[in-house]
Amino acid sequence: MIKEITSLKNEKIKYFASLKNNDSIKKEKLFLVEGEHLIKMAKDYLVATLSLKKIDYLSDDIDQYIVKEEILKKLSLNKSCSKVIGVCRLIQKDLEENKPYIYLDCVQDPGNVGTILRTALAFNFKNIILSSDSANLYNPKVIQSSQGAIFNLNVIQGDLNTLIDFKNKGYKIYSTTLNDKSKFLDEFLKIPAKTLLIFGNEGNGIREEIFKISDYFIKIEIDNIDSLNVGVATGIILNYFKNKIIE
Amino acid sequence: MIKEITSLKNEKIKYFASLKNNDSIKKEKLFLVEGEHLIKMAKDYLVATLSLKKIDYLSDDIDQYIVKEEILKKLSLNKSCSKVIGVCRLIQKDLEENKPYIYLDCVQDPGNVGTILRTALAFNFKNIILSSDSANLYNPKVIQSSQGAIFNLNVIQGDLNTLIDFKNKGYKIYSTTLNDKSKFLDEFLKIPAKTLLIFGNEGNGIREEIFKISDYFIKIEIDNIDSLNVGVATGIILNYFKNKIIE
Repeated sequence: MIKEITSLKNEKIKYFASLKNNDSIKKEKLFLVEGEHLIKMAKDYLVATLSLKKIDYLSDDIDQYIVKEEILKKLSLNKSCSKVIGVCRLIQKDLEENKPYIYLDCVQDPGNVGTILRTALAFNFKNIILSSDSANLYNPKVIQSSQGAIFNLNVIQGDLNTLIDFKNKGYKIYSTTLNDKSKFLDEFLKIPAKTLLIFGNEGNGIREEIFKISDYFIKIEIDNIDSLNVGVATGIILNYFKNKIIE
Repeated sequence: MIKEITSLKNEKIKYFASLKNNDSIKKEKLFLVEGEHLIKMAKDYLVATLSLKKIDYLSDDIDQYIVKEEILKKLSLNKSCSKVIGVCRLIQKDLEENKPYIYLDCVQDPGNVGTILRTALAFNFKNIILSSDSANLYNPKVIQSSQGAIFNLNVIQGDLNTLIDFKNKGYKIYSTTLNDKSKFLDEFLKIPAKTLLIFGNEGNGIREEIFKISDYFIKIEIDNIDSLNVGVATGIILNYFKNKIIE
């Protein structure tokens, strides 16, 4: 279906604009993405697009709304208004069994969460658990900085109980932290497929309750400064472990 | 000197507020930092502070202005207004000889530049060259995401000619890129102390002119996605090379 909409007051436009709000995303089970790169990555979840002219590469079952720039401006969260905005269904995937998981414990900066998702996909860590106090998966900055990785990952929300469930299924918990039990990364020669890697909050690190149920503590050797950015730390650790998983 | 200022219209306050602007920073050779952590890191460069009450840990030669919250709000760039703002001299350090250098080629996102500076300090790569089209060292977001690392690094601005000068002094240029000449990181067993590591623009990578004068090309093994965030890539590469420099 291709349809032109010219009025900012059109009910459909008001509805799509409501999806800038997190509560509406949850209720309507739809979210927005911006820009050609993300539209292409989103293809399995795309239900509609809004653009200045017809987009040729989309399949016929996607509703295309041809709109004016002022409508895109109303929907866009970028300063430099996007030329195409997509409406997507929430992402649902089956979690993988016997594969490593990443758990983000209160990682609050959406840029960090998005960067971690992008990095996780690059190193084939496809299963992610976000604590409820981490940045939301559908936060536009998470989507943007993930570079669309969210469409190819299995992401769920979880908490301490989720970790305990995993532990009961035989998973080992590896917390990344600078405490006195921590070993340097290169002391870990292999990790089991049933591994849960925990990364913590930007300022406070991993919370105490998670420390208590952790099996191993990993640190990166650094000088001169207290800590690395959590996205950088994740990159170093996932790059190191990518070929060290015992299947 | 400790002095109270109550009026937003005070000339000193207007002067400090002008330092939110990049041209004024260059002209006055002063810049602002926010928050206790950065004030402490800045101590060698600090000339004045503005705060709600006297700060005990500062030495007597630093001018302390005791101000109201509305004045801090006027000077702050953070949404959650900082409780202390510092005025600093521009950072000047001697560059080190026969040490590795990092060159950022049009890395535009200030969060990325700041994160790279923080990471560089953590892995003892203390000499940085910023291309003039990279984010500015004194951009508040660079300072913030560097976590104060800027005060402990030697950072200069440079361009292609700077790189050619280094090459003439015997430096080898290592460009990080996914071209067909690139070798995987773990194929590099050692690097010379006279190494220049180049990291490129977020979207376009390293520019052609720099490729042409490069001696080696490094890539990180990734799947499923085109590239890593430049800050993450820098972290992985610096962590790998930190103990592989031939002195």
